Amino acid sequence: MILCDIGNSNADFYQDGKVWSMSHKQFKEFSTQENVYYICVNDALKSWLQGRNHFIDLEPYFEFDTIYQGMGIDRIAACCTIEDGMIVDAGSAITVDIMSGGMHLGGFILPGLGAYEKCYASISPRLNLPVNPSIALDALPQKTNDAISYGVVKSIIMLLEVTCKDKRIFFLGGDGKFFSKFFSNAIFDRTLIFRGMLKTIKEAHLE
Amino acid sequence: MILCDIGNSNADFYQDGKVWSMSHKQFKEFSTQENVYYICVNDALKSWLQGRNHFIDLEPYFEFDTIYQGMGIDRIAACCTIEDGMIVDAGSAITVDIMSGGMHLGGFILPGLGAYEKCYASISPRLNLPVNPSIALDALPQKTNDAISYGVVKSIIMLLEVTCKDKRIFFLGGDGKFFSKFFSNAIFDRTLIFRGMLKTIKEAHLE
Repeated sequence: MILCDIGNSNADFYQDGKVWSMSHKQFKEFSTQENVYYICVNDALKSWLQGRNHFIDLEPYFEFDTIYQGMGIDRIAACCTIEDGMIVDAGSAITVDIMSGGMHLGGFILPGLGAYEKCYASISPRLNLPVNPSIALDALPQKTNDAISYGVVKSIIMLLEVTCKDKRIFFLGGDGKFFSKFFSNAIFDRTLIFRGMLKTIKEAHLE
Repeated sequence: MILCDIGNSNADFYQDGKVWSMSHKQFKEFSTQENVYYICVNDALKSWLQGRNHFIDLEPYFEFDTIYQGMGIDRIAACCTIEDGMIVDAGSAITVDIMSGGMHLGGFILPGLGAYEKCYASISPRLNLPVNPSIALDALPQKTNDAISYGVVKSIIMLLEVTCKDKRIFFLGGDGKFFSKFFSNAIFDRTLIFRGMLKTIKEAHLE
């Protein structure tokens, strides 16, 4: 049994505690004789996967109680394993969800670090600069490259801080490890979504 | 005498207390027999303006003391009129500068509201939604459109709040009036850049 979480940039795989990634292009060339339980937020790939041998869409098997409309299945998979806490998936987008007493209270979405970088470049060639995630946040910037890096990183950190209050924070996604360093109550867990998928497979008696 | 501030989206004009705007395209078709004192952050238009009759680049006449490297001339024009305060120009980008005792202490840059909107759309078709600036910030969002609007507006407001402390905030730019509503110590002044230009014209004895 292989698990696969297909996002907007990559497909992430899990098998027996091992985690690996593929580009969408590599994913389309991948084949296996094992069952692949997948979730997918990319509509084009979701259509492409319909009816493929050995590929089983896990989305219909999730039972998650929320009034949030249109919540991505990757967010549901991550949240369904957490009773209390803030879940931050920092990938192409940064999704933030709050769980309290097993209830989903809502969430919000920020652009991911790479998306911010492209965003500045689209405003002016003068802002076509790399975002430096290690920017110092305790001193006001004195040049353009620092000014955009500070804007991005500090605005994200401030919003996460006021939202989490004294809750534990679970970070995942490509930039999750980076953001987790700013918080003392943080846990970086790249297998969170896969644990949610395993829980659903077990509860639905699929294997 | 006409003043003109050319940004990345528009050219803003000022004459005798009246303010009006043109697109870059309209600006290229505009001609006058009066002197137009301009500042310009758009490099392509800056080259195009070189040597045009009646158009005088004010940039070389500004004397502004800062260690900030590559500060846009529009930010310098806005800051040079303020002794103490935070200056927020919310246009294509949101530039934020701190003045204290007539000294420029530094600043940072966030994307403008329109740039955030395009940024989300570039991540996923599911996030290709309008940013609603009037989103409620006191309740966690329960749908995607609210989730992106909340992410944008609250992350900007939080960072402005921690930066300004008890300083007065001067807002300008297309979205300046909107953001000024969140702060009790805010002044919206769309003529701030023009007042800086007038001050420079006077000090340099140009008219």
